[in-house]
Formats: sequence, C-alpha cells, structure tokens
Amino acid sequence: MKYAGFSRRTLLGGAGAGLAAGAAAGAFGRAVAVPGQPHQVSLGAARVDFHGPHQAGIVQPPQARIELLALDLAPGATRQAVQELFKRWTRTAGDMALGEPADSHENQIALDAGPSSLTVTVGLGATFFDKLGLAAHRPPQLAPLPDFPQDAIDRSRSDGDLLLQVCADDALVAYHALRVLQQLAAGTAGTRWQMSGFSRSPGATAQPRTGRNLMGQVDGTNNPKPTDPDFAAKVFATGPDWLAGGSYLVFRRIRMLLDNWEQLPTDRQERIVGRRKSDGAPLSGGTETTPVDLGKQDPDGSLAVPADAHVRIAAPASNGGAAMLRRGFSYSDGVRPDGAPDAGLLFLAFQADPAHGFVPVQRSLSRGDGLTTFLRHEASGLYAVLPGVPDGGYLGQALLES
Amino acid sequence: MKYAGFSRRTLLGGAGAGLAAGAAAGAFGRAVAVPGQPHQVSLGAARVDFHGPHQAGIVQPPQARIELLALDLAPGATRQAVQELFKRWTRTAGDMALGEPADSHENQIALDAGPSSLTVTVGLGATFFDKLGLAAHRPPQLAPLPDFPQDAIDRSRSDGDLLLQVCADDALVAYHALRVLQQLAAGTAGTRWQMSGFSRSPGATAQPRTGRNLMGQVDGTNNPKPTDPDFAAKVFATGPDWLAGGSYLVFRRIRMLLDNWEQLPTDRQERIVGRRKSDGAPLSGGTETTPVDLGKQDPDGSLAVPADAHVRIAAPASNGGAAMLRRGFSYSDGVRPDGAPDAGLLFLAFQADPAHGFVPVQRSLSRGDGLTTFLRHEASGLYAVLPGVPDGGYLGQALLES
Repeated sequence: MKYAGFSRRTLLGGAGAGLAAGAAAGAFGRAVAVPGQPHQVSLGAARVDFHGPHQAGIVQPPQARIELLALDLAPGATRQAVQELFKRWTRTAGDMALGEPADSHENQIALDAGPSSLTVTVGLGATFFDKLGLAAHRPPQLAPLPDFPQDAIDRSRSDGDLLLQVCADDALVAYHALRVLQQLAAGTAGTRWQMSGFSRSPGATAQPRTGRNLMGQVDGTNNPKPTDPDFAAKVFATGPDWLAGGSYLVFRRIRMLLDNWEQLPTDRQERIVGRRKSDGAPLSGGTETTPVDLGKQDPDGSLAVPADAHVRIAAPASNGGAAMLRRGFSYSDGVRPDGAPDAGLLFLAFQADPAHGFVPVQRSLSRGDGLTTFLRHEASGLYAVLPGVPDGGYLGQALLES
Repeated sequence: MKYAGFSRRTLLGGAGAGLAAGAAAGAFGRAVAVPGQPHQVSLGAARVDFHGPHQAGIVQPPQARIELLALDLAPGATRQAVQELFKRWTRTAGDMALGEPADSHENQIALDAGPSSLTVTVGLGATFFDKLGLAAHRPPQLAPLPDFPQDAIDRSRSDGDLLLQVCADDALVAYHALRVLQQLAAGTAGTRWQMSGFSRSPGATAQPRTGRNLMGQVDGTNNPKPTDPDFAAKVFATGPDWLAGGSYLVFRRIRMLLDNWEQLPTDRQERIVGRRKSDGAPLSGGTETTPVDLGKQDPDGSLAVPADAHVRIAAPASNGGAAMLRRGFSYSDGVRPDGAPDAGLLFLAFQADPAHGFVPVQRSLSRGDGLTTFLRHEASGLYAVLPGVPDGGYLGQALLES
C-alpha cells in the first residue's frame, strides 16, 4: 500500500524545467527520462530500473554513496522465509528505485528526495546454501577465496550469508533504502557487518572522468566497457541455470597507508603505479586510454613501466587474460588507535568467474607489486550476485523454487 | 607555487553551457557565478569565498559531505609555529576554495573536480589558549560545557585544541582538503579525532527543502535566517576584539537509537517531536514554517503540542530566547558491537554565546523531552570560531599578534 495521495514520481514529474543537472547526469550515463521531461533530469529524479536481465548496480558507474550490508540468516530460517524476504526486497527495492515510498517499514528519511539513481544489488555467500539445504546448487566458483600472503582479514567484517549493495547519488536516499531493507529482513536475517563509502558526485568534474581513489590516482581505466563485444563474457555468469545473467562479486576492504604514501614524491608514486598521476596515462606514453606498452624502454634501456609497477603485475596479459569490472568506492572512517587514517578503498569487482578474475590478479599482486606495501586487505567477501528480476518475478526465484 | 599551466578554475570556466545543475545549485543558495558563466554553475564549479567578514561554512546550508577533524598542539608548539600554520591554512584553504591545487602536500585526490562549494572553518578549543600562553585572552564563553544528566561522553572523541570543519558537495573534494590541511599541520598539531557525515546532495529534492535527519524528521525549521534582522546578534560574537565576527560552535555526536525509534508508529513519533513527519508542520497546525502555537488545544482540551514534545522543550520561549544556527550532518559508521546501528547526528550549532544558545536548551532537553530517550550524546566539543579573514590577512591574526 502506498501513502495515500503521495507519489514522489508525480512530485518530480511536475517540477518542470526548473530542474537541471540533466546534461551532467546524462554525461554520466545514468540519467533516465522522467515522463514529460525527456531532456532534463535532476540528480534526484534520475532513476535506474530495478528490473532487467541483470541486477542494477553492476554496469552503472559508481554513484556518490554506497552502503554495504552483510546479513546472516537467523538460526532455523527456512527456505520459505527467505522466499518471502526476497519477495519483499524485490517489491520494495523496485518501488524505491522509482522514488516510491517503501510499502512497509517506511522511515521517511528520503521522503522529499527523488530516487537519485538508487540501486539495490543482492548477493549470496557460500554459507547461504548450506543453511538452506541448497548445497547441491552452490557453484564451485563460490569456494572460499585463497589466503594471500599479505592478508590481514578480520572475519567479523567479512563474508556473510547475504550481501546488499545499496548505492545512490544522495546519502540519505541510500540510508533510507538500507534501513528499510534491513528492517524487512527482521526475523529472517540479521546484520553481520555494515560499511559506507563514497565516489564522485555527479557534476563535480567538468567532464565525465574515470574516478580517483584516496591515493589520488585515476582508478578504473582498464575496466571492461559495456560496449566491448566480450563485456558480458567477462562480467556475467552463464551458469548454473539459476545464476545465468548473474555475476560473482569480490569485496575487499583495502586500507591505504596514506601517511606513508603521501610522503613519496609524485614521480615515485607514478613509477609504483605505472601511470601518470595527473591524467592516468601509462608511463609508456599516450593518454589515459592508450594501452600500456609493457615492453617500452626508456632511452637508457630501462623499462618505461617498471618491472614491479602495479599496472604491469595486474595486467590481463600477466594473468591469463583475467578480467573483472571494478566498481570501487572510497571510505573514510576516522582515525585508528595508532593515529593513522582508517581510510581506503571498498574494492568491489564483478566477474563471470573469480578464478579468471580476481584470484589470479591478486595472487600476482600479493607476491609483491610496488603498491602492495601501501595497502592492507582487512576484510573480504565473495558472493554470487543473483540474476536480474523480470517483471512479476522475484530475486533468486529460480534457485529457491528449484 | 601552482602546478605549471594548470588551473581547475580555467578548466571549469571553459566548459561552457554543457554544464548544468545551475538552477538546482542556485536554488540552494550556494552557487557562485563562474566567469563567463553567470547563469549556469555545476555542482563542481560552485564555490564559496574563503575570505570575508565571517568564515565560510557557517551561513551556507550544509553541503553533501563533512569531514570533522580535531587536532591537539604538539608538545612545545610555539605561538610562532601556530602563526605559520594558520598562514599556511589560510593560503591553502583560500586556494582550494577557488578550485586551485594546494601549494604543498597536494595529493591530487580532487584534481579533476571543481571546488564543489568547499568550505573550511577553523575553531579553537579552550585548551588552545593555555598551551600557547594566551589564557588571558580566553573568553569566559569557552568554559567547559556543563555535564548534562543523559550524557555518555567519550572524551577521546571530544574537545581538541583545534577544530577543522571541512565541507563540500563532493566527498573526494572534502577528503582532499582534509588531508592537505592535516599534512600542513605536521609537527605543529596532530590529529585527535576525525569523523565524517553527510547531508542532502544538491538537486536530490525537486525544491530546496529543510533537511531530514536519520529519524526521518524535518530538522532545522526554526533556524535563524540570514535575512532575519537579529541574525548576526544570534550567531556571531562581538567580542573580545580578536573574536569579533567569529562565533561559538557546539559539537555533539548524537547517536540515534533507530531500532527503537523505527518501531514506533508515525503518529507516536510525531507527538514526541511535536511536528508532522511528512512536512514538518507543527502539530498546532499550518505548514512547516508556521510558528508553533504552544497553547493550542485539541477539541478534547489536550495540548496539540504535547507537554514533553521536543519542539516545546527546545523552543526559544521555553529557554529565555535562546537561539543558535544548527548546521548538522548525519553519520552512519556501521554497526556497534551490540548490533545496533552506529548512526545519528553530528550536531553542529553556531551561536553568539553558548550560555544563551546550546546550554539552556540542552539543560531543558536533558531533563526529559520525549526525544531524549532515543538519543545518546557520545562526544562533545566547544570551540571559538575565528572571525573571517580579510584579503591579505590570516586566520587568528588579531589573537596571535596580540
């Protein structure tokens, strides 16, 4: 049941051309036309359809804000209870993506705002399957990630039976959706851990740009593009049947040792990464999007991209063609007891198969690229991201009705 | 020294009319014309002058993101060292407010972005004066806040010799400025605590609106308006001489017991606050901006605004006319060990004198308004906010040269 006589969609649709930000939002590729306003969509009015062949929150560029919530099933939670939860989440996430209030547990935090490109993305951890008697359906790709030499993983902030990735260009809209979805789970699944992060606000740069991380480096240049012919093969799973069109999400909370990093001169930082800091161009020359020439030599015969540079060690060519769609957010959680900033990257990467994505790349990096010294992997997770939901269906339907 | 040939200001000025968000930004009252672009200013291009009779970050509506940083002076820090620091902060905050890179410790985190309404606001804690032999200049208004009955203050996340309030509509712009200013203090002042928060993104609502907090309530309706004839008298200090045009900032980290709050039906929440949740109108009738009629009776003879309603207990009329300019931000810092959300309000209020602002209001509230049950004050601070800096001057000049 909706609030009587209230529809945020109507409110926004009636606001007319006084709203702007359309060009900026459009440039970022995530503006959606509002009825009667085909050319002008504000940050608030922009929306991303919940329904489709894939879940929302994968191919869209990162929104300004993320809330990540991992949940564990309540002891004794039944498959039927989870089906009911997934139906509630489906209905409510779909409503909220349109800017409608939630049909229950509405807390009104986002009441004045438009959907602000809200996306809700649901993933399943390996433990989900055991608890519900679905172990036979658990794909081998969900086997635990290997331990990497440099890991310092806090398991209480890792894993989880369920993961919710909630993103929006307005932090209150994201928090509203987080709380509603969390409350809808009451009795069936409870919070295991929660983290927040951020990325660029739409319009903060004059042109759409690849984002930067808190080290100041352009981050995400070599991501697969939705227009690449092999994009789907790299990002989306083809099986088992219940997961076709889904994906695998690797999460890592990566703290950056910023006090150490910022003491380095820029040219040293650039040799560690293998790209120019100002514009992300590879040290082998060209612009940001120029392919890295790993064999290029400087006039003195040394490698233009150093032997331990991050881009060399992480390159697909160095890792059997490994590919993933990174969709990371920065985080800043204050100061640690040792006085260092508790800040870094909520690394999120979608891939068709972690064995041909994150795992080989991280195995290479953890053996010692130049950047690893400045990073600490503190939390980790691997989730099967459910396929998109057709109209009339619900999240995980094929799995839960199997 | 600026980066050779690079100026973000120029970059943005040349972007032309393809940029939008001008109307939305203007409606929020903090867009500033970019040369050659009098009518269209993007979120990124909007800027707030650092220089002026008052510091920036007081009268502007809250930006989308805040970083709060408290610092303590290094043992043995001299007045001269602090003067040099304040000169560095003045120059660099002024540059960054224009979208220029910092002249040292530039970390490039914000390199592609415009200033995004960046403001930097500096305050002094009571302990600042003792450590620098300036106790004779410490105004009596900086005496420690009283202990209130409901307080549960963690002093390690409270107080501080110095406070930096860094706000911007882009989280990376705010973090960039935070890190630069923090590094500029190295050797003179070190981090005591740091917190982050958020408010509405420009354009998230179809019309400019009073913000909402994480309880879903419209929050800030009764704030003094810059157009009020007594605005300056309520917000800005007139003395001592070195503080004329400055202010007093009260900070409280107020956790909200959201799990409890969200269990209440909306009408119960409304009676606790004394306003309608949907639009903030007082329960005595009218719209959001209608003055609360504390004497109004319902047909059954009961008070329309209950006796313990938050708006009644906090009303200026109940507290000797006490007034302050609240400029709060929400925070979401994940989950506490007890499973509850670590989320709530970074309460920030500017006032001419805390004895006629925060103190009497909080004394009334802590005796038990209806809302207090759902709140925990976990950190606290009181700071003398320095006056604005004229061109050619520097922060705190009148005090430090006294």
